[in-house]
Amino acid sequence: MRWSKSHLHTLRDAPADAEIPSHKLLSRGGYIRKVAPGIYTYGNLMLRSLRKLERIIREELDKRGAQELLMPMVHPAELWQETNRWKEMGDGLLKFKNRNAHEFCLGATHEEVITDYVRKDVKSYRDLPVNLYQIQTKYRDEIRPRFGLMRGREFIMKDAYSFDVDPPAALKSYQLMYDAYQAIFDRLGLHYRIVEADAGNIGGSQTHEFQVLAEAGEDHLMVCDDQGQTQCQFAANIEVAPARDSQTASVDASSALPLEKFATPGLKTIAALAKSTGLKESQLVKTMFFSSNPGTDPQNKALMPIAVCLRGDDEVNPVKLKNALGLTNPPLLLTDEEVRQVTGASPGSCGPVGLKIPIYFDHALEGRQNFIVGANEDDFHLKNVNLDRDVKTAGQFKGFKDLRLARAGDQCPRCGKGRYVSKRGIEVGHVFYLGTKYSKAMNASFLAQDGSSHPIEMGCYGIGVTRTLQAAVEQSHDADGIIWPRAIAPFDVALVVLDPDDDEVMQNASIVERELQSRGFDTFMDDRAERPGVKFKDADLLGFPLRLTIGGRGLKEGIVEVVTRHDKKMEKVPLEQVVDHATRCLQHSGQKSSRAPA
Amino acid sequence: MRWSKSHLHTLRDAPADAEIPSHKLLSRGGYIRKVAPGIYTYGNLMLRSLRKLERIIREELDKRGAQELLMPMVHPAELWQETNRWKEMGDGLLKFKNRNAHEFCLGATHEEVITDYVRKDVKSYRDLPVNLYQIQTKYRDEIRPRFGLMRGREFIMKDAYSFDVDPPAALKSYQLMYDAYQAIFDRLGLHYRIVEADAGNIGGSQTHEFQVLAEAGEDHLMVCDDQGQTQCQFAANIEVAPARDSQTASVDASSALPLEKFATPGLKTIAALAKSTGLKESQLVKTMFFSSNPGTDPQNKALMPIAVCLRGDDEVNPVKLKNALGLTNPPLLLTDEEVRQVTGASPGSCGPVGLKIPIYFDHALEGRQNFIVGANEDDFHLKNVNLDRDVKTAGQFKGFKDLRLARAGDQCPRCGKGRYVSKRGIEVGHVFYLGTKYSKAMNASFLAQDGSSHPIEMGCYGIGVTRTLQAAVEQSHDADGIIWPRAIAPFDVALVVLDPDDDEVMQNASIVERELQSRGFDTFMDDRAERPGVKFKDADLLGFPLRLTIGGRGLKEGIVEVVTRHDKKMEKVPLEQVVDHATRCLQHSGQKSSRAPA
Repeated sequence: MRWSKSHLHTLRDAPADAEIPSHKLLSRGGYIRKVAPGIYTYGNLMLRSLRKLERIIREELDKRGAQELLMPMVHPAELWQETNRWKEMGDGLLKFKNRNAHEFCLGATHEEVITDYVRKDVKSYRDLPVNLYQIQTKYRDEIRPRFGLMRGREFIMKDAYSFDVDPPAALKSYQLMYDAYQAIFDRLGLHYRIVEADAGNIGGSQTHEFQVLAEAGEDHLMVCDDQGQTQCQFAANIEVAPARDSQTASVDASSALPLEKFATPGLKTIAALAKSTGLKESQLVKTMFFSSNPGTDPQNKALMPIAVCLRGDDEVNPVKLKNALGLTNPPLLLTDEEVRQVTGASPGSCGPVGLKIPIYFDHALEGRQNFIVGANEDDFHLKNVNLDRDVKTAGQFKGFKDLRLARAGDQCPRCGKGRYVSKRGIEVGHVFYLGTKYSKAMNASFLAQDGSSHPIEMGCYGIGVTRTLQAAVEQSHDADGIIWPRAIAPFDVALVVLDPDDDEVMQNASIVERELQSRGFDTFMDDRAERPGVKFKDADLLGFPLRLTIGGRGLKEGIVEVVTRHDKKMEKVPLEQVVDHATRCLQHSGQKSSRAPA
Repeated sequence: MRWSKSHLHTLRDAPADAEIPSHKLLSRGGYIRKVAPGIYTYGNLMLRSLRKLERIIREELDKRGAQELLMPMVHPAELWQETNRWKEMGDGLLKFKNRNAHEFCLGATHEEVITDYVRKDVKSYRDLPVNLYQIQTKYRDEIRPRFGLMRGREFIMKDAYSFDVDPPAALKSYQLMYDAYQAIFDRLGLHYRIVEADAGNIGGSQTHEFQVLAEAGEDHLMVCDDQGQTQCQFAANIEVAPARDSQTASVDASSALPLEKFATPGLKTIAALAKSTGLKESQLVKTMFFSSNPGTDPQNKALMPIAVCLRGDDEVNPVKLKNALGLTNPPLLLTDEEVRQVTGASPGSCGPVGLKIPIYFDHALEGRQNFIVGANEDDFHLKNVNLDRDVKTAGQFKGFKDLRLARAGDQCPRCGKGRYVSKRGIEVGHVFYLGTKYSKAMNASFLAQDGSSHPIEMGCYGIGVTRTLQAAVEQSHDADGIIWPRAIAPFDVALVVLDPDDDEVMQNASIVERELQSRGFDTFMDDRAERPGVKFKDADLLGFPLRLTIGGRGLKEGIVEVVTRHDKKMEKVPLEQVVDHATRCLQHSGQKSSRAPA
């Protein structure tokens, strides 16, 4: 393609709402243009990258026996009501009525539609296994879209669904997709980690996330730092990362002292209390209040309060708490007013003693004696609190659980030797083993060889296609622009022509262009009547792997300048060797991907 | 691909709502499955045809300098309000509010979004021309979706938009797209006609439709039957087909007789009146009433009645009337009650005499004297009505216009020799010259060489991608199934293996499969453990151009059966020659397309 014939307009400045480098660079390079918050038009360059990525995905999935189809974007309410997700998905699922007053939603995911598709045709175990996928636009009504394609409302996903006769077969399908995802992200040349994760409200018991490592990532990961012989590869989303202190706390063997109430006027925070008592924050115990009402029934507004006690310097992990409570969505924190209803005091003065509600203790409190908590009376705390004597008496103590957010430095739960290192990641892929959640709810079953009927075992597997493209940019750029991995670069070569009005220059540039194309490389010729500085700046911004500069002055000496984008190394190459040279550069330019500890 | 590894389930019976052959066959063949009325999942086979069609479209458009991009499906109301189509599009535009109460619609077409995209970047005449297209899912809230993909709610379109400096340049872009569409439909091997058409509410002054000829087509076409040397190619959608009597009416030179009211008790129809008076229906004059209120302002409920007089045996063409009135949408017929408000009588007894509202006469009434119309008094008519004396007096006579529906047998307006033949068509493509309707409304302008600012000249160009696939089936099938044109067949060859359990048979079939694939043909092997009859029936239903049958009995004689789908001709071919033979068949199998008079 040639710039003079294309509708490509780069911008000097990024739009005001672009906060992170990839959003800025994709906007400035004309790759994307905002239509509404979280909704973008993809320019021709972006579409080229998209097509290359789609192709890689298709190749790896087709190779493993998955079959592509295409489901609609608009779904009837009835299907989502069968699984109750019509309610459970909350406001992120965009619902509307059509002109005939029928209820529909925009597809945020397609478990219901694919299960309906499969249940109509699958009758027997002979019809299984099946693995179906699509690459389709999805819509989620993000309340605060940001970061461009990273958290958009309308985006493109690859979603696949496996259907099997039993759990072992389903886990084989799971592994096949896990392998496919590895192959895909390896081919893209991305640095990523496969991490343990939470299934969210999609259901399912086994799940991994594929996380591209980047500062701007919205996900917080805990990664084992063990670089020893075993090279423990443990990595988990902080949402589920087991929290183990790196030093096991010595059990406090002192005997229980008499319970004592003491005044703490104006001490509303753990920090203030620590300062006043001279104890460390970690020595104090804080109590948090949540509602365990699942929130799926709009009629049921009951508060259903629970209390969570944990170390003063720890934070509650809402996902762990959600799973401990068996909820679909993380429970809501009570308001100050609601806390007062439950305890009679404001949150800064609350504790577990005397409460008639379910009480959960974090693991880190195990063995603790004679500790301090709020007295459930404003401006008072209790000291010398002991679990057996003071908390368990109300009969609602629910035991110790891992409920806190893990921290860098915590012990690796797999190897026990390494410690957590904190990383940021962009979730680009996710594999779930779903079991029979959807097939049971939607009555998708098959007849086994013995004639008995069983719900189909399912898995679902997503890749954020547009998000992956932006993640690649977020991970691979410099101050001047994008550095595309060759596998998904819109073009392989930027052919910068310095004197497009000079017939001889254009003739030579055209020959190089043709020869590169005949070797299967995508070329983009900058043949605009612009100054060299403008062209170089744009070439850096757009970020194709190789830049060839052809101009009158160079040609007089018979040379072409070749610059590799990722390291900006420049070589002067004789005109007649430039195509061979470029070929070699491109063959070696694929940045190596990595799943090694980063 | 092999059937045993694929999720393909054919049906013996078509769903109850499938009325036309293409809908039935695509459903039975597992190509499409209904998710909701007008909303379908495309199976793997359908997707393969879709990809082949998309590829042909891309090749022909890219070749002509058009560039692909991808715009969103969800559009903010603000853009559509700029052109007033937020109101004008009516209920077919699906609108909704998101969780933040912002108004959006699902993209039914993309003029607003593309104009917004272009106006942001185009500054100067040097940035033009531009031609941008996308292949994207669209949604129109059809009140009664039917015929499968033919009139669906969610469907895939290719839409292109051209941007030029002036009308001659815009018409050049128009011609380029017209040529591209010819090339595309020629490559598909479809019988189609290019017809003159109405621009609908999209605006614009020049427009052609590409209509695939098929009995089940929803569009009614008038085509010149002249097969003489000139071969007049005139064809028009009946919506705009000029209506000219094949014999010019001799002007009635009789002088005006005295106006006379006569009783017509119970004669409420033209047929009854003709019977009672002994005149032909064509000799009578009927009067129809419409509201010229454009209906775009929900506040304005004014009736704004008009009357249309035409020959008793003619029908009003609502599109011609719409254009005569300068409206965006066809005007609504008045209810009986509204007619009574305007005339004082029920519709069967109404006429133009004495009315104080705008009155339009159809061309066919020119020169008529002493005619009969309703008296605007129940059960009475007037005879000896004369235009000058009895109608023009109220001062609201708007003259003669072409307002009737053309009929088979009418004179061709282009060559004057031929006569109209009536055809049914499926609209698969549409090209519009839009002028500056959108660019003016949305302030999309450029600076000319002299520094003056001008609105950009636009055109828009659509292909119903999914509709084209079904149109191909509607045009090309027989009682047993689909007969795919090779260009868009999901597979080129059905390899029917009769004894898949026989190792030797499978070995030979696999060799044939591999060799065909290595020659670039797509193969689908039916390796199921099914009876031959079932396999042959399914092969006919699925409709791939060529069927090779490999079985134990044939192999003993060293032969393979080769059947061409379109004519069901069977040949027995020696095994070692079958790949060459199949290659020859496929190279010649492309049914020829035709734009010749059908």
